[in-house]
Amino acid sequence: MREFSWAQIGAARTTIAPFVHRTPVFTCSTLDERCCGHVFLKCENLQRTGSFKFRGAVNAVASLTPDQRKRGVYAHSSGNHAQALALAARLHRIPAYVVMPEDSNKAKIDATRSYGAAVTFCRPTDDDRRATAARVGAETGAVFVHPHDDLRVIAGQGTAVCELIDEVADLDLILAPVGGGGLLAGTVVAAKHLVPAARVIGCEPSGADDAFRSIQRGERITDFTPNTIADGLRTSLGEKTFSIIRESVDEVVVVAEEEILPAMRFVWERTKLVIEPSSAVAVAPLLTRQIDVTDLRVGVILTGGNTDLSRLAPMQGPLP
Amino acid sequence: MREFSWAQIGAARTTIAPFVHRTPVFTCSTLDERCCGHVFLKCENLQRTGSFKFRGAVNAVASLTPDQRKRGVYAHSSGNHAQALALAARLHRIPAYVVMPEDSNKAKIDATRSYGAAVTFCRPTDDDRRATAARVGAETGAVFVHPHDDLRVIAGQGTAVCELIDEVADLDLILAPVGGGGLLAGTVVAAKHLVPAARVIGCEPSGADDAFRSIQRGERITDFTPNTIADGLRTSLGEKTFSIIRESVDEVVVVAEEEILPAMRFVWERTKLVIEPSSAVAVAPLLTRQIDVTDLRVGVILTGGNTDLSRLAPMQGPLP
Repeated sequence: MREFSWAQIGAARTTIAPFVHRTPVFTCSTLDERCCGHVFLKCENLQRTGSFKFRGAVNAVASLTPDQRKRGVYAHSSGNHAQALALAARLHRIPAYVVMPEDSNKAKIDATRSYGAAVTFCRPTDDDRRATAARVGAETGAVFVHPHDDLRVIAGQGTAVCELIDEVADLDLILAPVGGGGLLAGTVVAAKHLVPAARVIGCEPSGADDAFRSIQRGERITDFTPNTIADGLRTSLGEKTFSIIRESVDEVVVVAEEEILPAMRFVWERTKLVIEPSSAVAVAPLLTRQIDVTDLRVGVILTGGNTDLSRLAPMQGPLP
Repeated sequence: MREFSWAQIGAARTTIAPFVHRTPVFTCSTLDERCCGHVFLKCENLQRTGSFKFRGAVNAVASLTPDQRKRGVYAHSSGNHAQALALAARLHRIPAYVVMPEDSNKAKIDATRSYGAAVTFCRPTDDDRRATAARVGAETGAVFVHPHDDLRVIAGQGTAVCELIDEVADLDLILAPVGGGGLLAGTVVAAKHLVPAARVIGCEPSGADDAFRSIQRGERITDFTPNTIADGLRTSLGEKTFSIIRESVDEVVVVAEEEILPAMRFVWERTKLVIEPSSAVAVAPLLTRQIDVTDLRVGVILTGGNTDLSRLAPMQGPLP
């Protein structure tokens, strides 16, 4: 995709530096033993708003013209993009309007509101989501910020791997989950510029494997019904992200649904980091050895940590 | 307690430096807002073996004479001390023998064995635990390492707050959970030496409030049956730890059982750190404002992250 290059990611690094956390990189000896490699976990679960999404959102907001800033931004999202855009707007003192399905997790609604965004509810269908968002956009005159198919957003997401590469030399392989593809697209463009020898692999849950199938077929598949526990990866690739990913990513591997929660649990237990199922999709193929990383240095983007703990029964139950 | 002083903690820092992780310090803006203070979380859940216990265990093992090293070490523990002593012994290439109740959590048994310790099971009663440990000690000639009532162990535990004070200037208040009292005793001696103006408060669950009652009564209470979700804090104070704590700690606050899991969940959700219930005992009084920390700089030792995730149903369940 000619209109997108490393230069935009390099510029995004400077733009977003005052706003983002430089997240730590964790290692885990048990993980290394299990996969026979050296794994470096980039902890975007410790990013502001709990996911890498804040990088793209704040880059998009920072790129607005003065006139656009007055009008504010809007998006539809049930998840991490909503919180990320809300905080990005608040830090820039501009309005944010977020359309959320009425069955969204209450903690996410509360978090989005706590960052000052105006939340409008819609029915939990794609059609009503789009229609409601269009209405909010028309009423407010705000600028739409897509969660992934936006070059400002893709550039922001690409900054996470830049920090990882700064800190960890000679990576052989970089793994990132793929949903809408914003993270993977930004990651591959940054990585191929900074460490051209490293391979970049996208990791996709079997219940939403549209990226894998789109690449195989050579055209973007949009007509599918996701059924995955990795709730951050249910969306399909965008036109821009598909174009970049098809051109540059070395491989997309499909991770079996039943491997995701065990990998998530492994990370919780062994690293003491809360990650969400979407993040575990990039850890599972190391534990199962679906990807052979023997003696390799492997970077993994842990994308976020916004899990719904209200489902974890003992947190509210009686004494054991 | 005259036989224990800062000097032993200072020496322990040097002794254990090659073995321990210097754990990070986290902050959390939502926590600060809730308590109107500035809170610094010392992440001993990220310590080797998942808890601060490794500091004391490795200091004790490093203090052995050459003859003692040949004989190895033993302990009885169902929890974090078992794993800590096992790894400390392995790193010093000496034998470790651990007596564990037969109903111990399988993950903890496996972890203890994975560090190379020989595990002997006993019935889950205090009497059988002690009797079995005595037998193991007699058979092996190994050196007993008490989980808290041992000055080498107390000195090691005191090193965590030293690192926190290195990193965070001008603390007004330091909070640590209290079970057997090894952490609190080491913490108060170190803190009163390094930042004499800081107050040190022990936090104890209401289901095992022997430290609070022992101080009130002026003598150590040992005859009680704990009933707390904070499984790391079920033991009673030792003679040595009671003596130090009574002399130096400013206050012990009793935290209601029903406040512990909500505080644990808050930390999981907001910091993305997995902590165990015992750690949450020192966070709960900030969230409930049981301790007023308005405008104060507060250090909190997050003691460990070894929770039993097998109880968290959705980790193994069907798709939501």
